[in-house]
Amino acid sequence: MSKKLLVVGTMAYDAIETPYHKVDRILGGAATYIALASSKFSNRCGLVSVIGDDFATSDIEKLTSLGINADGVERVKGGKTFFWSGRYHDDMNTRTTIDTQLNVLESFSPQIPAEFKDSEVVVIGNLHPGVQKMALDQLTNPNNFTLLDSMNFWMEHFREILDEVIAGVNLISINDEEARILTGNFSLTKAAKKIHQMGPRYVIIKKGEHGAQLYGDGKVFIAPAYPIDQVVDPTGAGDSFAGGLAGFLAQAKEINFDTIKQALVVGSVFASFTVEAFGVKAIEGVKADALNERIQRFRELTSFDWTDNTLSL
Amino acid sequence: MSKKLLVVGTMAYDAIETPYHKVDRILGGAATYIALASSKFSNRCGLVSVIGDDFATSDIEKLTSLGINADGVERVKGGKTFFWSGRYHDDMNTRTTIDTQLNVLESFSPQIPAEFKDSEVVVIGNLHPGVQKMALDQLTNPNNFTLLDSMNFWMEHFREILDEVIAGVNLISINDEEARILTGNFSLTKAAKKIHQMGPRYVIIKKGEHGAQLYGDGKVFIAPAYPIDQVVDPTGAGDSFAGGLAGFLAQAKEINFDTIKQALVVGSVFASFTVEAFGVKAIEGVKADALNERIQRFRELTSFDWTDNTLSL
Repeated sequence: MSKKLLVVGTMAYDAIETPYHKVDRILGGAATYIALASSKFSNRCGLVSVIGDDFATSDIEKLTSLGINADGVERVKGGKTFFWSGRYHDDMNTRTTIDTQLNVLESFSPQIPAEFKDSEVVVIGNLHPGVQKMALDQLTNPNNFTLLDSMNFWMEHFREILDEVIAGVNLISINDEEARILTGNFSLTKAAKKIHQMGPRYVIIKKGEHGAQLYGDGKVFIAPAYPIDQVVDPTGAGDSFAGGLAGFLAQAKEINFDTIKQALVVGSVFASFTVEAFGVKAIEGVKADALNERIQRFRELTSFDWTDNTLSL
Repeated sequence: MSKKLLVVGTMAYDAIETPYHKVDRILGGAATYIALASSKFSNRCGLVSVIGDDFATSDIEKLTSLGINADGVERVKGGKTFFWSGRYHDDMNTRTTIDTQLNVLESFSPQIPAEFKDSEVVVIGNLHPGVQKMALDQLTNPNNFTLLDSMNFWMEHFREILDEVIAGVNLISINDEEARILTGNFSLTKAAKKIHQMGPRYVIIKKGEHGAQLYGDGKVFIAPAYPIDQVVDPTGAGDSFAGGLAGFLAQAKEINFDTIKQALVVGSVFASFTVEAFGVKAIEGVKADALNERIQRFRELTSFDWTDNTLSL
C-alpha cells in the first residue's frame, strides 16, 4: 500500500497567453497540479486548499473522481477563487504576470483533516510562509517526509518566517533564481550547501528547460529536462514535477538519495507531459505506459558507456 | 596510434575582466584552446593559424613543447596578433566584448602543411566562413571527420558561404542561441533537425553552464556541464570542449554516435578544467588522473538506477 500523502497549496483559475494560443479561465493552482500528479501513485492522497463560490463543482469532481480526498478544501461563502493571469514570451521559458487576484487566498488558514495529519509524505506548495507554517504545525507524524516550494517574493519580504519553515522540512524544491536569491550565491553548488545549513537534508534546484539538480547526503544528481518538441503551456510544470516526485516517494520502499533521484526523474517526466497541453489537461491523462516509456527514454538520453575506459594522455 | 588531427583557427592575446579579477594580455584564441586540449590525446596534432610580430616565441614553444606541430602557424611580418578584450558579468555566463582588433586575422589565408592535408580528424574553429572554406578545400582525406564551430555574426551576415561550409562538415558544435539564429527555431530538438537537413550528420548544441546536447543517427544525448564550485574565467570553455572532444575521437577506434557521446563527456570535463583558471593555464596542466576522476564523477552525477522498475499507476 502506498504511503498516505498530503498536499497543501493553492487552487486557482488561470488566464494564460502564449505566443500561439490564449485561454481565459481554466483550472489551475499549485496544489491542483501537485495533487493530480501525486494521486497517480497514491490512493490515499489528501488535498488542503481554499476556493470560492465560483469554483465549479465539476472541477472538484475531476479531482475526487481520481481518488483525491478533497475534505480539506475549504469553500468560502461569498468568496472568489484565487485568480492568476500571465503571458509567456517567445522563448516559452519566461513569463510576465498580468494579474494576481488573491481573493480567498488572502485569509487562507489551512485546516488539515484529522485523517491526514499523520501523512507520511507531505507537499507544501508555494504559499505565504506564514500559511505554510500553519500547515506544518498541524502535522503529527514525526517520521514524515516534508517537501517545500517557495518563491522569490517570500524570500525578499518574509524572510524570517520563511527561514523557520525551511528549517523544518526534509526537502526544498526551488528554481535556480530563487536559490540564488535565498543564498546570495551564483554558484548553485555553493547555494545548495548554504540551504543544507538552513535545515533541509535534500535540496532540489529546478532550472526549467535546463533540468534539475538534487543535492543531499554529500552527493549530487544532475538531470536534464525531458525534451519536448513543442511546449504548449509551461504553467504547472514545477508543481507537477513536485507532485510526480512526491507520488513516487509515497510508493517507494525507502526515501533516500537514490530513490529521490528516481523520483526526480519521475517528476521531470510528469512536467514534460504537463507542458504539452494547456492547464491540467495533459497531466490528468497520464497513463502508466507513456510514463514508463519516457522514463526509459530518459535513461537513454542521459547515459553513456564508460566501462573499463581509462584514458591515458 | 592516434589519428592525425588538424586544428584551424585563431590565435590571440586576450584582455579579460571578471567580477573578481583582471588580466591585460594573456595567450588566447580558439585554435590555441582547441589544440591544447586535443593534443593531450594525439601525438600528431597540427595547428594552422596566423600571428603577428608581437607573438611571443615562448608562447609558440609552449605549444610545440606539448607536441603540437606549429608549421602551419603563419607569422606575418609587421603584423599584430588578433586581440580580444571582454568583461564577464556577475553570473559568469554572459559577457560584453570591449574590443576586437582583428589585425593579422583580417587577411588570414590558411595554408595547411602537406603533412596535415590528409588528417583524419579536423577541427575548424570559429572564423569567417570564407576562411573556413579555404581550409576545408585543402583537405584531401575523403574519410576525414570534420568538426565546425561558428558564431551569430557569421550567421547573420555571411549566411550563403556559411551554409556551404556547414553542408560539408560531419559535426557542427554551436551554442543554443546560435542554433536558434541559424534555424529560427526556439525548440532545440527542432533546430537540430533543421541543421541535420543542412548537412551535418551530428549536431552538438552547447548550453554553457547548462551542459550540451548531441543529435545524430536519430538519437539524442543530453549531458550537464561538469559542476564547478567557482568559475574563474569562462574564456575558451567552448573551444577546449571541442578540443577534448576531437582529441578523444582521434584515439577512438570508431567514430559513431556512441563514441561521440563519450567524446562530448570528455570535452565537457576539459571545459570544466579550463574555466577554473585564467586563460590556458588550467588546460595546459590537465593530467590523466584528474581527467579520469572527473569522467567517473560525471557518470555518478548523471546516472540513476531503474532496473526492472516498471511503474503502475
